[in-house]
Amino acid sequence: MPRPLVLNEDRLFPLEPSARALARELYGTVARLPIISPHGHTDPAWFALNKSFGNAAELLLQPDHYLTRMLYSQGVPLEALGVKGAAADPREAWRIFAQHYHLFRGTPSRMWMDWVLSEVFGIAMRLDAETADAAYDRITDALATPECAPRALFERFNIEVLATTESPLDSLEHHAAIRQSGWQGRVITAYRPDPVVDPEFEGFATNLALLAELTGEDCGSWHGYLAAHRQRRAFFKGMGATSTDHGHPTAQTADLSGHEAESLFDRVKGGHASSQDAELFRAQMLTEMARMSVEDGLVMQLHPGSYRNHNADLFARFGRDVGADIPLRTDYVHALKPLLDRFGNAPGFSLILFTLDESTYARELAPLAGHYPCLKLGPAWWFHDSPEGMRRFRRMVTETAGFYNTVGFNDDTRAFLSIPARHDVARRVDCGFLAELVMEHRLEEDEAFELAQDLAYDLAKKAYRL
Amino acid sequence: MPRPLVLNEDRLFPLEPSARALARELYGTVARLPIISPHGHTDPAWFALNKSFGNAAELLLQPDHYLTRMLYSQGVPLEALGVKGAAADPREAWRIFAQHYHLFRGTPSRMWMDWVLSEVFGIAMRLDAETADAAYDRITDALATPECAPRALFERFNIEVLATTESPLDSLEHHAAIRQSGWQGRVITAYRPDPVVDPEFEGFATNLALLAELTGEDCGSWHGYLAAHRQRRAFFKGMGATSTDHGHPTAQTADLSGHEAESLFDRVKGGHASSQDAELFRAQMLTEMARMSVEDGLVMQLHPGSYRNHNADLFARFGRDVGADIPLRTDYVHALKPLLDRFGNAPGFSLILFTLDESTYARELAPLAGHYPCLKLGPAWWFHDSPEGMRRFRRMVTETAGFYNTVGFNDDTRAFLSIPARHDVARRVDCGFLAELVMEHRLEEDEAFELAQDLAYDLAKKAYRL
Amino acid sequence: MPRPLVLNEDRLFPLEPSARALARELYGTVARLPIISPHGHTDPAWFALNKSFGNAAELLLQPDHYLTRMLYSQGVPLEALGVKGAAADPREAWRIFAQHYHLFRGTPSRMWMDWVLSEVFGIAMRLDAETADAAYDRITDALATPECAPRALFERFNIEVLATTESPLDSLEHHAAIRQSGWQGRVITAYRPDPVVDPEFEGFATNLALLAELTGEDCGSWHGYLAAHRQRRAFFKGMGATSTDHGHPTAQTADLSGHEAESLFDRVKGGHASSQDAELFRAQMLTEMARMSVEDGLVMQLHPGSYRNHNADLFARFGRDVGADIPLRTDYVHALKPLLDRFGNAPGFSLILFTLDESTYARELAPLAGHYPCLKLGPAWWFHDSPEGMRRFRRMVTETAGFYNTVGFNDDTRAFLSIPARHDVARRVDCGFLAELVMEHRLEEDEAFELAQDLAYDLAKKAYRL
Repeated sequence: MPRPLVLNEDRLFPLEPSARALARELYGTVARLPIISPHGHTDPAWFALNKSFGNAAELLLQPDHYLTRMLYSQGVPLEALGVKGAAADPREAWRIFAQHYHLFRGTPSRMWMDWVLSEVFGIAMRLDAETADAAYDRITDALATPECAPRALFERFNIEVLATTESPLDSLEHHAAIRQSGWQGRVITAYRPDPVVDPEFEGFATNLALLAELTGEDCGSWHGYLAAHRQRRAFFKGMGATSTDHGHPTAQTADLSGHEAESLFDRVKGGHASSQDAELFRAQMLTEMARMSVEDGLVMQLHPGSYRNHNADLFARFGRDVGADIPLRTDYVHALKPLLDRFGNAPGFSLILFTLDESTYARELAPLAGHYPCLKLGPAWWFHDSPEGMRRFRRMVTETAGFYNTVGFNDDTRAFLSIPARHDVARRVDCGFLAELVMEHRLEEDEAFELAQDLAYDLAKKAYRL
Repeated sequence: MPRPLVLNEDRLFPLEPSARALARELYGTVARLPIISPHGHTDPAWFALNKSFGNAAELLLQPDHYLTRMLYSQGVPLEALGVKGAAADPREAWRIFAQHYHLFRGTPSRMWMDWVLSEVFGIAMRLDAETADAAYDRITDALATPECAPRALFERFNIEVLATTESPLDSLEHHAAIRQSGWQGRVITAYRPDPVVDPEFEGFATNLALLAELTGEDCGSWHGYLAAHRQRRAFFKGMGATSTDHGHPTAQTADLSGHEAESLFDRVKGGHASSQDAELFRAQMLTEMARMSVEDGLVMQLHPGSYRNHNADLFARFGRDVGADIPLRTDYVHALKPLLDRFGNAPGFSLILFTLDESTYARELAPLAGHYPCLKLGPAWWFHDSPEGMRRFRRMVTETAGFYNTVGFNDDTRAFLSIPARHDVARRVDCGFLAELVMEHRLEEDEAFELAQDLAYDLAKKAYRL
Repeated sequence: MPRPLVLNEDRLFPLEPSARALARELYGTVARLPIISPHGHTDPAWFALNKSFGNAAELLLQPDHYLTRMLYSQGVPLEALGVKGAAADPREAWRIFAQHYHLFRGTPSRMWMDWVLSEVFGIAMRLDAETADAAYDRITDALATPECAPRALFERFNIEVLATTESPLDSLEHHAAIRQSGWQGRVITAYRPDPVVDPEFEGFATNLALLAELTGEDCGSWHGYLAAHRQRRAFFKGMGATSTDHGHPTAQTADLSGHEAESLFDRVKGGHASSQDAELFRAQMLTEMARMSVEDGLVMQLHPGSYRNHNADLFARFGRDVGADIPLRTDYVHALKPLLDRFGNAPGFSLILFTLDESTYARELAPLAGHYPCLKLGPAWWFHDSPEGMRRFRRMVTETAGFYNTVGFNDDTRAFLSIPARHDVARRVDCGFLAELVMEHRLEEDEAFELAQDLAYDLAKKAYRL
């Protein structure tokens, strides 16, 4: 028998009544603030072309690796879900998802999806085998209406600014089209150079050739290669970018002499680097990117510590991003030292650190960010972008780094419809955390109201120079 | 002045009244469910012979390394406790324990022991120096009665199935005797091949010779050795085994070619392996065991990360298992890859992972189990089999792996009388966790009732194929 | 508009009313107990000379690296704060601090400073840009009065014993002067030999020469060097020392043969050790210090895991201790084995372990301390000396090590005025923790009252042999 789908207005607030009451009050002051989304993976083509999204499965299920990984872990073949263009009837894929919806109990995916079903599509019954078809139809029908076109949703979601992430090889044509369209939505890019910085990235040598073609620089030479980066960074900045992003397996940095760096580049540029050279080159490039950030003012982001494509068989069959990336233990204290020795005290330089290794919050990241003027901490990331994950972040970071060495919330998602749900979770959890501090008399009430606004809006805007 | 011993009916439930009320209600639906004990170290001889247990010290104190280690840490010599057959008056040993009972404040041992004293023996006063003798007498007298014979307790504890753990070299005569006895209690074995898999195990070469003798296979050859495993696994399966268990220092796996494996076996079989070869052989054997599990359907368990016998002097004097095993930092992401590359997507294969390194819960184990179809997570283990340990497990695991990639509770104990107490703690903590999720509106009430039953009973039965 | 500064009497207690009520009651029994401060970094000259402290900035801001690091992280130059004798107007430095006081929201520094402002100086308004001058004047004026002289504060703070920390090269003249003065305050020293034990310490070779001069021993020979230690330890003991302290980058110990140790000493004594030799020498010296502790009964403390002076530029400009020390991942299980193999079961030997790596609490430290008779755990240290840090300590340590393998609280500070505030935070957090255990029925009320006293007073006294 279908059950009602209810989003309780007190969800995620502390249980103790006085803290809950204050959390509710704090949340009331930030619930409607515009969304600052300074880091994510939505597709700028959506906003450039403003074409309707297809159907429920295509929009909400197939590209969401949080969902497909959990289903796969319980024996559902990715083919049956139509992942990565596998032939599958979308309605049938949606039914499988709905039948397995209980798997998501206690996960953030459940909270985000319930929000989307209820708030975007007005669905009143909990998703399950029985309600699957009705939900599918309601969503798919709604997607065909103008109210659910990408730009309309962007406006309805009250997004003030949304950053996408592009490779230096991207023409940014969609960003250009958005700007030329006259539409007022602020969609900006971010510079993510992994494909031309990581010698182990698929097609690295080809990517260098494309970079050379795109820039007219000689990307067979270290100096030409750096010049190409400078040129693309400037181009990205022109398309609104205020930040770069770096998705390395480790946080390792290096500070080689010009001669050493040149010789290293010569060894890796052909695409046949040893793993040591590849790691060293990525390390050196973080320091080069820092140098360029000091020059051009782009805020640098480092997202290290993911073992990409851990499932070899799935990678061979489906390629990247099917939910088989697994976090790694990550060191920051030694790894960042070369870069920090060079630029750690450089005026205006800003480096936002993320982690998938929570043991570094209190041990390494908060002490580093609580000292170096250039360092700030990004919010709880990826697997930790969840109520418990956010609480651990605040509890382990705040006492050493304070609030003002953090940067507010990132949704970091390609699941466009979940963006408001994710920001809502973060705002609720943060207001709950602040309320508990007040009720424990570790913070005054007026400060909590100021901080609620800072965490929901101001810090992100300031940290990303938006 | 002696104090009353009271087991409050609300113990371990959340403090906030609405969550406490719901936890109590949830617990009410699972408190009396039969016990599924799929992994532990009780002695099958107890149930085969059904002889009375001896005295309080012999049953409750001397074999319990949780107790003896704490007493030793505060200066009590193991000899005085009669550990490992050291000559000691059992009543005197019990008195020492009782005098030091305050050391266990805040530990799970205190909760388990209080349950045993109160619920099994009807003792109404808290254990201390004054009450020691009365408790000793009451327990020792009760043990001589038919109501406290092993089978009677098994039935009184409402145990549906109890797995013990045996070496391949074990004849399983007690298991055979239980089956032939006509008694209906379900006691099954599990295949724990460490003594013939770990080249650093005491007597490894001798153990191989015994294995050869037992199976008629040539355990001087790699193929004969593997055939001997297959034969013993089949024999164990015949004695009810549904699982294997592997207690390695690390989670390292390997996937060598047949030729490499053979040559490695030749190097280690004599019992003089280098530590690298020993580690590599254990690693390869995990993959071999996985291969056999794919064939025979035995669920595989991996319990890595304990530095065994850390106290060299005590090991020399008392041997293994005297409370000197210390957890180690453990890596799973790299370590399991060879095995997962080979069998990670194999239909029907199931590998249950345990850890003593809680930093891996959110970082490695939940992401792995939330992706690979073969992986499930065992409950909080050993030092973490405790209220706070269980809460950390649920809070760090659930958001990424969900509930359905976990396997319910294991008591993992040789302290037979504490089994119901341990399951009771787990059921209480889980009901408390679920109640808090409901009161935070992250889970609906009907789902919490379903999950309470799953966590207390169904998941264990299903995961262990019982 | 200035806001009142209020220290709520229920601060840091649990939110749930019944637990809060019991916490308040528990706290009531320990709030006024004398302070045992067995480990810290106050200056004995204060108590020897009893000269007035200077001004607000000089006393409360400039030497407090918790404060200066946070300000530096947000772009305030250390010069502007007058750190390390940099020329800066103290009032102006104080104003900068006050303007940035919001940075400390949610940090323990805020709680400590508010206590000092309110309880020592009677300041009733929250510190901010507007109130900065009034606070500065009030503090600076008060410091000139006899009530704020060091000895008067010591008495007012109800300190029973205060340990400072000195190098073997220190003459202990101030300690001698205190003893000769007739003043009854108990200020004792502790033996911190890092400058003559760590070959990478600034001026190591010179330090050895000074040690030789001071003792008349031949510190160019291994045996003379060890004899010099024995002599200085005895001298320190005569000045009240009951403990030694060791601040190594890792917890590595070694147990070399006499010949190996001698040859190692010859390699490092000139001050040009390789980093491996330096590490090995520190490791060996921990075992030598343990040996001497077995002989002379000084309790040994190990504070490992800090990457000192991480910010190279600041180190060059300001030297040590400017807030740029960053914690490191730390191993204890392998690292301590050589020392424990030698002295782990030695009667009367006591080694108190600290950590900056909280992932070791439940995994390594609690299991080690819950087994080895010589090991005890120091309280949450440095960055973790905070409400959340203390709670994590209790939650991750107690279930395995119990309460009685811990040693009460250390303030570990040079910020003299904050000592009562720090002990007050610890007492409140511990009483809250105990109250929650009682309300969860994991502990009886009478036990909680006994433990509150143990944690606040008795354990420290006993562990440090005071």
